[in-house]
Amino acid sequence: MGLVSQPALAKDVQLRLTAKEVSLPVDNKGTMQASWTYEGQVPGPVLRVTEGDRVTIVLTNDAANKNSHSIDLHAARVDVVKDFEAIKPGETKTFSFTATYPGAFYYHCGSDPMYQHIARGMFGVILVDPKDAKALPPADREYILVQSEVYSNPDDLHSIMKSDWQHVVFNGVAFKYDPVHDPASTKMLVAKPGERVRVYFVNAGPNEYSTLHPIAGIWDAVYPSGNPKNKKVGMQSLVVGPGDGATFDLISPVEGANVIVDHSMSHAHTGAMAVVMFSNDADPKMGRGNLILVP
Amino acid sequence: MGLVSQPALAKDVQLRLTAKEVSLPVDNKGTMQASWTYEGQVPGPVLRVTEGDRVTIVLTNDAANKNSHSIDLHAARVDVVKDFEAIKPGETKTFSFTATYPGAFYYHCGSDPMYQHIARGMFGVILVDPKDAKALPPADREYILVQSEVYSNPDDLHSIMKSDWQHVVFNGVAFKYDPVHDPASTKMLVAKPGERVRVYFVNAGPNEYSTLHPIAGIWDAVYPSGNPKNKKVGMQSLVVGPGDGATFDLISPVEGANVIVDHSMSHAHTGAMAVVMFSNDADPKMGRGNLILVP
Amino acid sequence: MGLVSQPALAKDVQLRLTAKEVSLPVDNKGTMQASWTYEGQVPGPVLRVTEGDRVTIVLTNDAANKNSHSIDLHAARVDVVKDFEAIKPGETKTFSFTATYPGAFYYHCGSDPMYQHIARGMFGVILVDPKDAKALPPADREYILVQSEVYSNPDDLHSIMKSDWQHVVFNGVAFKYDPVHDPASTKMLVAKPGERVRVYFVNAGPNEYSTLHPIAGIWDAVYPSGNPKNKKVGMQSLVVGPGDGATFDLISPVEGANVIVDHSMSHAHTGAMAVVMFSNDADPKMGRGNLILVP
Repeated sequence: MGLVSQPALAKDVQLRLTAKEVSLPVDNKGTMQASWTYEGQVPGPVLRVTEGDRVTIVLTNDAANKNSHSIDLHAARVDVVKDFEAIKPGETKTFSFTATYPGAFYYHCGSDPMYQHIARGMFGVILVDPKDAKALPPADREYILVQSEVYSNPDDLHSIMKSDWQHVVFNGVAFKYDPVHDPASTKMLVAKPGERVRVYFVNAGPNEYSTLHPIAGIWDAVYPSGNPKNKKVGMQSLVVGPGDGATFDLISPVEGANVIVDHSMSHAHTGAMAVVMFSNDADPKMGRGNLILVP
Repeated sequence: MGLVSQPALAKDVQLRLTAKEVSLPVDNKGTMQASWTYEGQVPGPVLRVTEGDRVTIVLTNDAANKNSHSIDLHAARVDVVKDFEAIKPGETKTFSFTATYPGAFYYHCGSDPMYQHIARGMFGVILVDPKDAKALPPADREYILVQSEVYSNPDDLHSIMKSDWQHVVFNGVAFKYDPVHDPASTKMLVAKPGERVRVYFVNAGPNEYSTLHPIAGIWDAVYPSGNPKNKKVGMQSLVVGPGDGATFDLISPVEGANVIVDHSMSHAHTGAMAVVMFSNDADPKMGRGNLILVP
Repeated sequence: MGLVSQPALAKDVQLRLTAKEVSLPVDNKGTMQASWTYEGQVPGPVLRVTEGDRVTIVLTNDAANKNSHSIDLHAARVDVVKDFEAIKPGETKTFSFTATYPGAFYYHCGSDPMYQHIARGMFGVILVDPKDAKALPPADREYILVQSEVYSNPDDLHSIMKSDWQHVVFNGVAFKYDPVHDPASTKMLVAKPGERVRVYFVNAGPNEYSTLHPIAGIWDAVYPSGNPKNKKVGMQSLVVGPGDGATFDLISPVEGANVIVDHSMSHAHTGAMAVVMFSNDADPKMGRGNLILVP
């Protein structure tokens, strides 16, 4: 992404994350839920490194928490027992890995019971950008979308194991970016016609599948797992299983709205829709910098 | 598909469709269901254009209907709000798009509640043939298969949202083309050994996944979303999510039957099976012209 | 795999299988279930031929059995009615096919009700190795994993049709290779760091999907349906539907454990996890010869 088109030099990158147990809304009306998070937000912060980087993770379990937590990054090739182990409140754990494959990878808590930690919001995306800056066509905007299920009472472990979810959502909140389907929503993803909008998508689950489709659009390209070598073109939809991720490019030839949706209707109609508004006066700050994950 | 092997010239194509609320059978015994359709049939008519064509859709909501309807075509890149909007009985709506990507695309009603409109039968396939006539090996027969769920009472919206379906079917009727598993079935898809049988498949859902497999055969090639560039070869099965489509080529080296099936057994055993009978005296009219969608 | 790097010569191969109804454990505590099997084991024996071979199947339904059985091999292109027909106890059936596509294919009983025969354990893997020995990078270890659902009472047909499973398992037993999550487990898959571990995976279903992920690892390559031409690289996960198969390559740069998992949490937490322990003193016999299917 630099000014000079050379392969990125491998770097040492240290990423610090703190597990925090907080209360967060799960819909646009402000229905609150006791959430387990990275850094107090769902999804957690976007981690971003470059293929070849040596990455050091420093995870702290906040002393105010009541539960053990951990971090399992799908971009890492390590020892599950030693590196992804859970730590108690007040503890800090450090481990390192080399990011050998580019992609859009899921990270999440693996502490027992893992399905509950995921259901409560302990997940995010780690992007490993290709070291060859030309491996993907340049994106004009980038957005992060993480799909997950919201359970009305995640203390009811049986309800999670039976996948008896209440909402299927993007980025933690039902209809978060969809004023078309929820009048209480005030946000949208935006871009200009002709711009290449790149969506880094992770399906956090814990259980449900996603068939990601842009209503009124077609994915110009999709990259399973986010790897440039896995390119497919002109796709109406792509199935992304729970625990998987992919990169999607969307371009609109006209002004107007597309709606990114999990096309499984029971998922769409409980919250898994996000408007992408294409207009010539789209806010230039959106889909860039910190606003690739729209809060 | 013409006599001269040149890229097709882009055309202006006008496609007229009328939404009709009618009663149709959902099994071979003639169990009827109040259906919402395009042109009184499930699936709706096969729309067929060529990559690059400028397509104008003229949708009429029949004045005798009781509900609003719309059309959402996965082949179109437009404004969801303006172009896919619902119209009332008696109204007509026109919009246009350029078919920029080849493929086998889903079209369906997007009128609220969309899951009910799909469950009642408002869906079909729009084929966008590649402008390069050599992009795909020539097919000897072509068939359309649309998978969907049949709900015993689609007025019970909760049952659809809970995916409590009664049958999973191809082309609107349980075991429609399967006299092997349903004595009341009288139809089959047919071809000769050695012929390339191309199946354009759409999974209309509204909720369930499909793993499409040809029992006693192997897909010679599959094309996710129907795009020639997405070719995979020698596939036993392909997962097609709800809201997705794909193109499948099947060739049998011998006389005898294959059975196209959603290999998820609960789907197969309630109706998602279709026999392809390979015989040297296969009816030459089948799988050609209007008989690519076998009524 | 021979000493000389030439395309394998096509062979005539006869494979004899006997259907046997026996009692087998479904968990590490030894909970027994009345099972229907090939050769008394779940999954059945690994069948292995080379692309181009002429394969003759000789299936015997043991005279001591009480049910009809059959064999449906996804590697075969035949007549479903004639070749995959069910035979009664005491009968033997022979049929032949040419293995025209390389891959990791599912085989299973197709006798009515097929979903029950699968749920009781009548399934296995037939490998068709590519005739070009260089089509895939050489594997240092090979393992077979077959996912399936265990039903608490497979006589309750309704429970299978409703997918009301008790466990989702690999190779017939919940947590079979996972002492990390089940203290009663005594087995693991093993390899050395740097070795290429090839997993031939089939999802037998009968109903559920799998999103196969190696916890703390990344698939170096995945081959949908096991065909070398369908290669994807650097994949965190791959969706494999019920009735499908794929080949996965895994390499660990370090000593330690990865855990192969169906990342759908309700599946993982009821049994679909398998440890791959990478250590420099890994048993050289494991993942080779008969130990590619670890009993």
